[in-house]
Amino acid sequence: MRLSTALLAFSVTLASTASLASNSVKKNNLTDAQSDPNTLQLMVGFPPPVDKRVTLPDSNFFSFPKLRWSVCHMRELLPTASIARNPYAYTPLKYALLPGIDELTFKPSNSSKLMTWQQSLAANYTDGMLILHKGKVLYERYRGCLDEHTNHAAMSMTKSLTGLVAEILIAQGKLNDKALVKNIIPELTNSAFGDATVRQVMDMTTALKYSEHYADPNADIWQYSYAANPLPKPKEYTGPVGYFEYLQTVQKQGQHGTAFGYKTVNSDVLGWIVSKVTNKKFDVLASELVWSKIGTEHSADITVDGLGTPFAGGGLSATLRDLARLGLAVANNGEINGVQVIPAKAIASIQTGGDKNAFSKAGFSSMPSGSYRSMWWHFHNKNGAFAARGVHGQTIYIDPAAEMIIVRLASHPVAANGVIDPTSLPAYQAVADFLMKQSK
Amino acid sequence: MRLSTALLAFSVTLASTASLASNSVKKNNLTDAQSDPNTLQLMVGFPPPVDKRVTLPDSNFFSFPKLRWSVCHMRELLPTASIARNPYAYTPLKYALLPGIDELTFKPSNSSKLMTWQQSLAANYTDGMLILHKGKVLYERYRGCLDEHTNHAAMSMTKSLTGLVAEILIAQGKLNDKALVKNIIPELTNSAFGDATVRQVMDMTTALKYSEHYADPNADIWQYSYAANPLPKPKEYTGPVGYFEYLQTVQKQGQHGTAFGYKTVNSDVLGWIVSKVTNKKFDVLASELVWSKIGTEHSADITVDGLGTPFAGGGLSATLRDLARLGLAVANNGEINGVQVIPAKAIASIQTGGDKNAFSKAGFSSMPSGSYRSMWWHFHNKNGAFAARGVHGQTIYIDPAAEMIIVRLASHPVAANGVIDPTSLPAYQAVADFLMKQSK
Repeated sequence: MRLSTALLAFSVTLASTASLASNSVKKNNLTDAQSDPNTLQLMVGFPPPVDKRVTLPDSNFFSFPKLRWSVCHMRELLPTASIARNPYAYTPLKYALLPGIDELTFKPSNSSKLMTWQQSLAANYTDGMLILHKGKVLYERYRGCLDEHTNHAAMSMTKSLTGLVAEILIAQGKLNDKALVKNIIPELTNSAFGDATVRQVMDMTTALKYSEHYADPNADIWQYSYAANPLPKPKEYTGPVGYFEYLQTVQKQGQHGTAFGYKTVNSDVLGWIVSKVTNKKFDVLASELVWSKIGTEHSADITVDGLGTPFAGGGLSATLRDLARLGLAVANNGEINGVQVIPAKAIASIQTGGDKNAFSKAGFSSMPSGSYRSMWWHFHNKNGAFAARGVHGQTIYIDPAAEMIIVRLASHPVAANGVIDPTSLPAYQAVADFLMKQSK
Repeated sequence: MRLSTALLAFSVTLASTASLASNSVKKNNLTDAQSDPNTLQLMVGFPPPVDKRVTLPDSNFFSFPKLRWSVCHMRELLPTASIARNPYAYTPLKYALLPGIDELTFKPSNSSKLMTWQQSLAANYTDGMLILHKGKVLYERYRGCLDEHTNHAAMSMTKSLTGLVAEILIAQGKLNDKALVKNIIPELTNSAFGDATVRQVMDMTTALKYSEHYADPNADIWQYSYAANPLPKPKEYTGPVGYFEYLQTVQKQGQHGTAFGYKTVNSDVLGWIVSKVTNKKFDVLASELVWSKIGTEHSADITVDGLGTPFAGGGLSATLRDLARLGLAVANNGEINGVQVIPAKAIASIQTGGDKNAFSKAGFSSMPSGSYRSMWWHFHNKNGAFAARGVHGQTIYIDPAAEMIIVRLASHPVAANGVIDPTSLPAYQAVADFLMKQSK
């Protein structure tokens, strides 16, 4: 099968959304300031000069430093569906801005040299940073391509939205997490997912013969990305088309329920499951159950495959503030301003955390005692923090003990949180410590 | 040059937006009810059955009856930019619903048999119909794929938004309509547009060696559409890429300013002009100068080419109500609820109408004494009506004498207003007569 350059580049994009710890770490010599798309003048001019263009056809639009522009412009590069806000119920965020955060210091876990919070913004190629404490915004910054009204690629944080949608349907009695997948999606009967439970899919403890090892050109993730690519395929292509067809080809390896394996196909199976039980598209469900409920200011975007199927594993783009609203609803047991907008049971299920033993088998060095439940990451640290996380530095980090939520949007050159965490997680803890001390 | 099926089909889409009177009228036997996408179950299911799919790769997504679904889903098929609303200033429409409209009768200009208003909805494959009288909604219907929150392809009504943007910049002193195009866009110096004035571009009285004759496979419109297609081009393709490159290749034939010629390339030159003089993308300008000013409820979408350039000649999708707001602002001299949101001078210029003599040379049978100014159509009928118009039945029809605005979104099988006007224009006049009688 011949992959055109454009298709291959596009596949890289989809693939990179799936990685927590990519092995294909690209070298680069540009700092945050040097790679700022405004500095580089990417896509500036009518038309932009050839060497400043970021386009689908060319098409390494998600290579660094081009991705520093692309993360804010996904819908201009790809077909997308809208995850609609409620046009009649917008909830302004409350503000209590607090000076001093930028000067906070912390020790990165891979260095003995102190770093300030402000330095960590540049170290992580941060596009947007928002900190909430006790429900109020105390810190908010926009950098690079981002401003307060621009949707930014959320990458694998999409999965946490998908997991939340599933938990809401469970709480509503419309989805049974003990059900076998084949009883909901007969098309998956002969795939690895057929005899897995919905819960195993939600917690990614399915046993799959499936590789997301990016350095391997024969890894399954490439075939998956290629199938999902909305661009027309060459006539000679006879493989699966779209997410749903591809998922049917994934085979089993081992026993379900024993080990965590971070594989994006689970999220897309879950996206399929929630659509099957409700007869609604994922973008519609995400709007009806979450986005229109939490007081969002803007509709979100989600990329779709060639059949219009939303990419439940990584296609979301949203504003920093709207992701903060999602964080608020999840941190506050489904309440926004005293109104129960999401079932408390759904949030409680996420908050219980996942199977630490199963998780430990996956070997995530920056989360030695972590777990994964309903597509949310649990750190099991002293503060009980849990998070939505996406490659290139995306997070909604919820610290219940400190009553703190940190939302970061970023375009780090490396598609691996393992590289980003050392200057991130200790920074988050430093802010938490600072806020807890202040509150005493 | 080999055009792939998908690319060619896509080209048809772009091309059809340009046509007021296409010669490639397709035969079809499906009525409005039979071709309703809900009845046909287009794109229903997870995944939809093969014969119910409407996709880019397949890809005659704008052929009838598929277009009845596609008009509501453009962003799911193509890359788009957002024309942003003002998130903090939404203006509800005022309502004074009036019974009796559906029963009004009129005589179609191509028949001696009376037709009711309600029958005309089906005759024109109407997806949305809204009538305003004295600033209040008296009639509103959603059909087919449309509801009150869904953006629908506006087709060539996009041009009228582009013309309005240009008129606002003229009123603000930022654009001189007497300037030669080459003095604003040096890249166009050697093209047909170089020695045309901005006004000639705005009124489409440029003299172009350029055909929008759809039945001719060698017509220029096909090359234009192909250049603008955002899909990757084959390696052997050496032609222009994107709107801006293509426009530079258009050559002159005749003298500017003597005859009207409905050619979409003018609108895209105008889109380029307004960007050059402001250093802002068209989507940004359309938002800043119009969409964020008129109290819209939703951001609009606009398709983009492979370089991110919005299709100023036909790429807009918007809701019925937001297009009504655009109509209100234009009908009311730029005022919304007593606030001057668009310069009155800009509206006044549009309202003066264009050169009837130049227009008559184009031979539009359904508008025998019409004219075209700033990309708005003037009927010069007894009521002084003028309109934005797009193929497949789109209109914002403003009747100043009757203080009436009719907004229609539709997916008529034929891409030619010449076929649609006989059951439309007399219907609009019948409502106007009814309202004027009521008001007496």
